[in-house]
Amino acid sequence: MSVQRVAVLGAGSWGTAFAKVIADSGPEVVLWARRDSVAESVNGAGINEDYLPGTKLPANLSATTDVDKALDGAQAVVLAVPSQTLRANLVGWRDSLPEGATLVSLAKGVELGTLKRMSEVIREVAGVPEDQVAVVSGPNLAKEIAAEQPTATVIACTDHDRAVELQQACSNGYFRPYTITDVIGCELGGACKNVIALACGMAAGLGFGDNTMASIITRGLAETARLGAALGADPLTFAGLAGLGDLVATCASPLSRNRTFGHRLGLGESLAQAQEAAHGQVAEGVKSCSSIRELAQRHGVDMPLTDGVHMVCHDGMHPRTLGAALIGREPKAERQ
Amino acid sequence: MSVQRVAVLGAGSWGTAFAKVIADSGPEVVLWARRDSVAESVNGAGINEDYLPGTKLPANLSATTDVDKALDGAQAVVLAVPSQTLRANLVGWRDSLPEGATLVSLAKGVELGTLKRMSEVIREVAGVPEDQVAVVSGPNLAKEIAAEQPTATVIACTDHDRAVELQQACSNGYFRPYTITDVIGCELGGACKNVIALACGMAAGLGFGDNTMASIITRGLAETARLGAALGADPLTFAGLAGLGDLVATCASPLSRNRTFGHRLGLGESLAQAQEAAHGQVAEGVKSCSSIRELAQRHGVDMPLTDGVHMVCHDGMHPRTLGAALIGREPKAERQ
Repeated sequence: MSVQRVAVLGAGSWGTAFAKVIADSGPEVVLWARRDSVAESVNGAGINEDYLPGTKLPANLSATTDVDKALDGAQAVVLAVPSQTLRANLVGWRDSLPEGATLVSLAKGVELGTLKRMSEVIREVAGVPEDQVAVVSGPNLAKEIAAEQPTATVIACTDHDRAVELQQACSNGYFRPYTITDVIGCELGGACKNVIALACGMAAGLGFGDNTMASIITRGLAETARLGAALGADPLTFAGLAGLGDLVATCASPLSRNRTFGHRLGLGESLAQAQEAAHGQVAEGVKSCSSIRELAQRHGVDMPLTDGVHMVCHDGMHPRTLGAALIGREPKAERQ
Repeated sequence: MSVQRVAVLGAGSWGTAFAKVIADSGPEVVLWARRDSVAESVNGAGINEDYLPGTKLPANLSATTDVDKALDGAQAVVLAVPSQTLRANLVGWRDSLPEGATLVSLAKGVELGTLKRMSEVIREVAGVPEDQVAVVSGPNLAKEIAAEQPTATVIACTDHDRAVELQQACSNGYFRPYTITDVIGCELGGACKNVIALACGMAAGLGFGDNTMASIITRGLAETARLGAALGADPLTFAGLAGLGDLVATCASPLSRNRTFGHRLGLGESLAQAQEAAHGQVAEGVKSCSSIRELAQRHGVDMPLTDGVHMVCHDGMHPRTLGAALIGREPKAERQ
């Protein structure tokens, strides 16, 4: 079955950019926005003025604030709301979901409290089988995709045919999706990257350069892969677009909130000072280092970098002490 | 057997920085330099003024231009000369190599003509068994290591005990080596990275940002891993410090000659113009894309990025055409 019509629920920058990707690939897209002004801006000027200013959206993309209208006849439903609000949103939407539609998660993170991945939350709330849920992840900075800069990504679904349908629905001249069946690995890569980006920021704040950053990225990915293996993921997924690809884009980008936040901590600022500089917001990695650490402990997995970031963020350890502790650990083999 | 005395043959920036790493870890180090002035500068002021200015070298590091003196009593011999001159140098040194000493390669590349890896060249010329040769690779920008910025690396040797001996000989408060037995993967990662860095530079020259760079890095590593698998390497090595780690440091660093060279090609300069801007030097990746492509063809491995870089460098293709060709390839699964 080819995908002709797609609903994208959530009109933030990434939801809007991905809606444009799909529309540019052929299918009709209806974008659901919470606020009237956003839907009006999209339907009137063809621009999401609030979340993706400056990007002209294609004519086969329309917006609505009526979720039933958005969902009507959709063969795929893209869930583009923040990870910690996905459950509550989905409870309100579940009765309107079209039967058999592929549910596609764009959210990255582990649910606080339950420690569940987003696809697990979707299956639980929507009451659908595993093979009906897909995940899109990769080096996906919304602004660059909106500018049609060439990007690769992955679409993960345990049902490979379903992943291929989605792949066809979002392949175009600037967006190249690859299929993969390892949903767990794909989601963990996205959830852990913010913690590693925090650590990269700390190293930069301490004055360290590209070797240190590359070492943190590589060893951060190694501990993510260890956690993944314990949870049933394929270690090779972390060497792919949803692991390494997403991580490198995040750690290299000056736009990354986590990296910037870590940089302030590395300069010696307290969590409160860094938070104040970020207009009161705490970076995602500050929260997720705790849930990932808990998940690792539950499965007996050693994650020294995540532990260290947790100690800096929540136990007042200085980033310089963390660096010395990491480098001074017992010598070991690379894969161990 | 613990390593007490090490000879480092070659006093360029990386050879000198690695000699300092070892000396800072305990062993006595003798650095062999071709030129008197370099040896005198090291022995007098304790600085390699020509290749690592500004870095004070430790007291247990001395230099000589007499290779027999350097090699006398060494349990490990570090070969730190450029890859394309390694064979000729080693022919002159082989009769002086201490019996049983570990021969350690710092050179990255594939020998032109023979398409051999550096460890293969060493085994052939020195007439030693495979398990006596080790390779050091990872995110190793010499200037940053000389400044004692924290860095991880890998030491590869098919004899794990020998790798552990070397690990002990170069572990200190800023340098953390991990052991690995996959020598082939370790060497291929280093050889292929310059080609990928060229492609990253081209993308930057075309005005593309972090998504595109992350996509190129990830897919470049995927094709490197395919070549590696055909040659007997473990695909997971490419997700480690000698693959991803080295590649990220190279592609992120503004100091990388390959990235800078690719940037000029991306801006539309010809190979000759880029070469002129680089003081007549052609970047390493311009040469190695040909030998890696030949190696891939010999083993029936698909390497679209390397092929494309070759076409830009040697067949006059415009980088913009390459980008469109790569993004428009037949859809596929990530691991295929």
